[in-house]
Amino acid sequence: MQTMGQWVLREAGAHNLRLEEKPMPTPGAGEIVVRVAAVSLNYRDLWFIADEQTDTSATLPATPGSDMAGTVVATGAGVTRFSEGDDVLGTFWAGWVDGECPPDAGVLGGSLPGVLAHYVVLHESWAVRAPRTLSAVEASTLPCAGLTAWFALVEKGAVHAGQTVVMQGTGGVALFGVQLARAHGAQVIATTSSAAKLQRVLELGATHGIDRHATPDWERVARELTGGRGVDHVFELAGGENLGASLRALRQGGRISLIGTLDGYSMSLPSIPSFLGRPTIQGIGVGHRRALEDLVRAVDTLELKPVVDTVYAFDQLPAALAHLERGAFGKVVVSVGG
Amino acid sequence: MQTMGQWVLREAGAHNLRLEEKPMPTPGAGEIVVRVAAVSLNYRDLWFIADEQTDTSATLPATPGSDMAGTVVATGAGVTRFSEGDDVLGTFWAGWVDGECPPDAGVLGGSLPGVLAHYVVLHESWAVRAPRTLSAVEASTLPCAGLTAWFALVEKGAVHAGQTVVMQGTGGVALFGVQLARAHGAQVIATTSSAAKLQRVLELGATHGIDRHATPDWERVARELTGGRGVDHVFELAGGENLGASLRALRQGGRISLIGTLDGYSMSLPSIPSFLGRPTIQGIGVGHRRALEDLVRAVDTLELKPVVDTVYAFDQLPAALAHLERGAFGKVVVSVGG
Amino acid sequence: MQTMGQWVLREAGAHNLRLEEKPMPTPGAGEIVVRVAAVSLNYRDLWFIADEQTDTSATLPATPGSDMAGTVVATGAGVTRFSEGDDVLGTFWAGWVDGECPPDAGVLGGSLPGVLAHYVVLHESWAVRAPRTLSAVEASTLPCAGLTAWFALVEKGAVHAGQTVVMQGTGGVALFGVQLARAHGAQVIATTSSAAKLQRVLELGATHGIDRHATPDWERVARELTGGRGVDHVFELAGGENLGASLRALRQGGRISLIGTLDGYSMSLPSIPSFLGRPTIQGIGVGHRRALEDLVRAVDTLELKPVVDTVYAFDQLPAALAHLERGAFGKVVVSVGG
Amino acid sequence: MQTMGQWVLREAGAHNLRLEEKPMPTPGAGEIVVRVAAVSLNYRDLWFIADEQTDTSATLPATPGSDMAGTVVATGAGVTRFSEGDDVLGTFWAGWVDGECPPDAGVLGGSLPGVLAHYVVLHESWAVRAPRTLSAVEASTLPCAGLTAWFALVEKGAVHAGQTVVMQGTGGVALFGVQLARAHGAQVIATTSSAAKLQRVLELGATHGIDRHATPDWERVARELTGGRGVDHVFELAGGENLGASLRALRQGGRISLIGTLDGYSMSLPSIPSFLGRPTIQGIGVGHRRALEDLVRAVDTLELKPVVDTVYAFDQLPAALAHLERGAFGKVVVSVGG
Repeated sequence: MQTMGQWVLREAGAHNLRLEEKPMPTPGAGEIVVRVAAVSLNYRDLWFIADEQTDTSATLPATPGSDMAGTVVATGAGVTRFSEGDDVLGTFWAGWVDGECPPDAGVLGGSLPGVLAHYVVLHESWAVRAPRTLSAVEASTLPCAGLTAWFALVEKGAVHAGQTVVMQGTGGVALFGVQLARAHGAQVIATTSSAAKLQRVLELGATHGIDRHATPDWERVARELTGGRGVDHVFELAGGENLGASLRALRQGGRISLIGTLDGYSMSLPSIPSFLGRPTIQGIGVGHRRALEDLVRAVDTLELKPVVDTVYAFDQLPAALAHLERGAFGKVVVSVGG
Repeated sequence: MQTMGQWVLREAGAHNLRLEEKPMPTPGAGEIVVRVAAVSLNYRDLWFIADEQTDTSATLPATPGSDMAGTVVATGAGVTRFSEGDDVLGTFWAGWVDGECPPDAGVLGGSLPGVLAHYVVLHESWAVRAPRTLSAVEASTLPCAGLTAWFALVEKGAVHAGQTVVMQGTGGVALFGVQLARAHGAQVIATTSSAAKLQRVLELGATHGIDRHATPDWERVARELTGGRGVDHVFELAGGENLGASLRALRQGGRISLIGTLDGYSMSLPSIPSFLGRPTIQGIGVGHRRALEDLVRAVDTLELKPVVDTVYAFDQLPAALAHLERGAFGKVVVSVGG
Repeated sequence: MQTMGQWVLREAGAHNLRLEEKPMPTPGAGEIVVRVAAVSLNYRDLWFIADEQTDTSATLPATPGSDMAGTVVATGAGVTRFSEGDDVLGTFWAGWVDGECPPDAGVLGGSLPGVLAHYVVLHESWAVRAPRTLSAVEASTLPCAGLTAWFALVEKGAVHAGQTVVMQGTGGVALFGVQLARAHGAQVIATTSSAAKLQRVLELGATHGIDRHATPDWERVARELTGGRGVDHVFELAGGENLGASLRALRQGGRISLIGTLDGYSMSLPSIPSFLGRPTIQGIGVGHRRALEDLVRAVDTLELKPVVDTVYAFDQLPAALAHLERGAFGKVVVSVGG
Repeated sequence: MQTMGQWVLREAGAHNLRLEEKPMPTPGAGEIVVRVAAVSLNYRDLWFIADEQTDTSATLPATPGSDMAGTVVATGAGVTRFSEGDDVLGTFWAGWVDGECPPDAGVLGGSLPGVLAHYVVLHESWAVRAPRTLSAVEASTLPCAGLTAWFALVEKGAVHAGQTVVMQGTGGVALFGVQLARAHGAQVIATTSSAAKLQRVLELGATHGIDRHATPDWERVARELTGGRGVDHVFELAGGENLGASLRALRQGGRISLIGTLDGYSMSLPSIPSFLGRPTIQGIGVGHRRALEDLVRAVDTLELKPVVDTVYAFDQLPAALAHLERGAFGKVVVSVGG
């Protein structure tokens, strides 16, 4: 019997992760087996491993990881979307194809098995073609971070040239946001607490940068940069009291995408600007398969290169997670192949 | 010289309101003079009079009142939209015709003179035809309370049959919400803290009622009433901590309209359901003229009758305001005519 | 071995339809077996049987029929959406769940086996719960005719109170259109060439009727009925030269749903009103599963009863098809049960 | 009394155009006087002068021209949007600010006086700030040609990276379409009947070109260029039988913008793909002021330079019109200043 390596969590806590030997999976009807080439890590992997998963219920033991690029090596009965040899990406949400998210959709590395393994088995409807123009390491960052930024900006936000968008921080979603907003002709105001990162995000294409340590009232400067009109769209990645600042930075009828929170379990929404500014505040929970296919097409057209901070070998997963926890500029990726 | 009565506030505070004698207005180019028949009162009139106006800057002395029905008695040069004798409604926002609200739009009874007078002069673009099927008293409730409910439900919310909508309280917006949602085939869950009002809102057509005193966790019952699926739309009229309950009542991808707040200057938004429930949270600041014209057409088609709690005579304005402050079931209206 | 009856077409032409004895189907993984209670017939069944199917490719022998209500009698491995005993409807499109129609979606009674049989096997994702408030005969009319009207009016058209909609003819889609538009507070102008049918459609709730024999320039009268403003939405069910009349009936920025054509393979679109009237002309090809679930919820809330012209027994399929070809008032349904 | 030059048409026909001496205009309340710097010509000017105007009723004598850039030299009472010295553009539609076009909106150079004059008087609401980054000649092309392309692509079409758009011909709207689609990351297939123009449109940024003489079934090639999927959006600028080809080039659920017609008064719409392809066919009649403001912001951000074929002096208007009639690559502009 052929075997393969797979990371397994039998008790909560990163120190409990073990690389185990498992039998090679075989595809059932409608399924594909994918040889995993790269897995991109997300904050939610940290929460999942620490047993703070709040979105999806997992029963331990479990395999974490939800963002994957690889190659189809076997197909089950009735599979029509893919053939052996096709390069694919998994979809973060298993079963959300388009429109609204159905209640029975699952999450890879959440309610469903994760992708930190040499081989994974997926229903064929949980995968899309990989972009032609990216390496597997780069492509692995699209299903969660890339799609989240795309869904907020393009699918929900209809970003267009001449708009101004605020990106908070320099995580994977924010940096995809910078690149995608610029690719649609929008201006980008990046806010970060590190002067070094500010320099890098400007090199990536951000039109303006605000150092939040030097300028705690960043929303005032953002508004000035738009000639007093207010910004069109804010990616809210900080949460807490910052949401009020985001509202004050916004133009009449502008948009806030609620994406993440570093600052606790609650955000504070001031009442008056919530009515009179007529904002649309939109919760973003990654996105659907059709939008991921749109993103892949866009990446190939734009020849957009995702920002990868560091690549770790498969057996260095704990080091990769520690890096993510410390903070990265863009994505931390585990190379699985070999 | 002909004179007329007009309420004037020379210092903040309701006890400072005086009914003064003023010269009859005459129309400039593009303007109409309207003989006011009825003025409907809104919470924001209370704030304005108490000098807590937070949305628009007024300089005292000022005349309050923003919701008016009346008859055109004179037209200035170049007026094409109206003729003498036309029954009209004012628009709450002066200068917001359609689409997004332009930055230079004003508010009657806010940055612009109010309508608590026997005669008012308006730019012709700040008025619409009155409905055929309503009395002036009834019609006066449409420009602010009626339009707010219509804008949230129909213009932004695209309400349709089979949906479930939550209406909080029994103020004017909430009761219009009950009637309009029912007229589009939606179910309505009304929440209120008074058993007597609960009975009346059920008689008005609400499908279900929840007494918030008896059932503080109203969101649990609301969700049960939808078979666990969650409600489609919540009119957030309470604010504060209640916004978190509204989010928990909501289905995946549902909608919250932020309309009012009784509970302070800040609302609390829990982080996790804000991402994972993918809500659209939409600030509503009344609405535009085109939507008011749509509402007038709808009212005539539906033969919908606004809920008027009590009608006061023109010189009883202070009593009318006191009633509004105590709480009303529907609208408090001042009859001006005579 | 248990057997069942199933209509089979081995050569094109209705006279070649045969009721054959077949083995009972058994469910594969993810599949359900449904005991069919009623099948509603559509024009496209006539085209399919006459081998004029233009939308989907079928290889004869084939079983026609795409609109079905029945009861789940067996479930395959891994089925989670349904249990034995559940009353269900098939979806016209197999594989279109929400959003845009994926290229690999099939049609029951088209590229996929039809439902004119005592039992059918479906993937569990191709069915939805039946409404509580309808008989199987009534419910069988929802997946194609009902959903087409709902998709055009509600999902795409966001119909609301005070609008005016034109319905052409008295087929199944047009009558659902009358009922659904009225249930959302819209006015309905029905056009038909039969005085008797005009009377019946007015009794069903249409606000106005136009006899197209007596009034060939129906669009002039329709426009007058809106006070010269123009109608908001036209269901284009006639095609050919009529599309030009529909455009002339329309208000600025109005909507035409292209649904069917009785008048040949081409429609004529006059150029000038196509630019200056800024119409949205929207092709409707039934709709997706999520919208069918919304429709089921709406039907139960509204207690809307579909208009069934005549019910035929299972072995009377040829007579039912002949009735449909002659023209019906609403739907022709085949009762399968027993 | 100061005088100025103004082109006047006293009888239909370009040979009847006369450059007349007129009194300098003065601003009424709410009005501005603009010293015209440049006027961009449009096909509709040709129709208007030939008395084939079909959209707006003019009474001769009249001044043609609807696309203008200039500088405010005087302001009337109550003007707040502009000051003396501001560089402005006229809006093609006078009175369409946002949302839907109101029935009483007029057209400069149509129902309202045109702009082919040294000075024009406009209501302040009929103008917007000019872009910072363009000359007056370049800026004059935005109000009609530029806005038409923007409205179809961005305001209605929500163009985004990775899409494929078809542009027909090399007139002003088509070339703006090429530039704007590329600026949002979309691919552009340009079709034209001239090999020389094909080369130029590729140099402008079109991704692919199809010579319609060499390839009459351009839609087949367009579809192949998308890997069989079909294009996302077609600018229909030819009309007639070409609309059927545009439909066949389109992906499921794609969009056709009806913008112009060179081929007669009627377009032919094949029935079957109109239902089954679920296209959205959208009539475009220029656009509103808010979108023009958005376009100005985009032009400044992108530093987009409109394609001007030839600039004519003010007294060379007849030669400029003749050039337009022969066909131009981009815009023909009359420089008025001096």
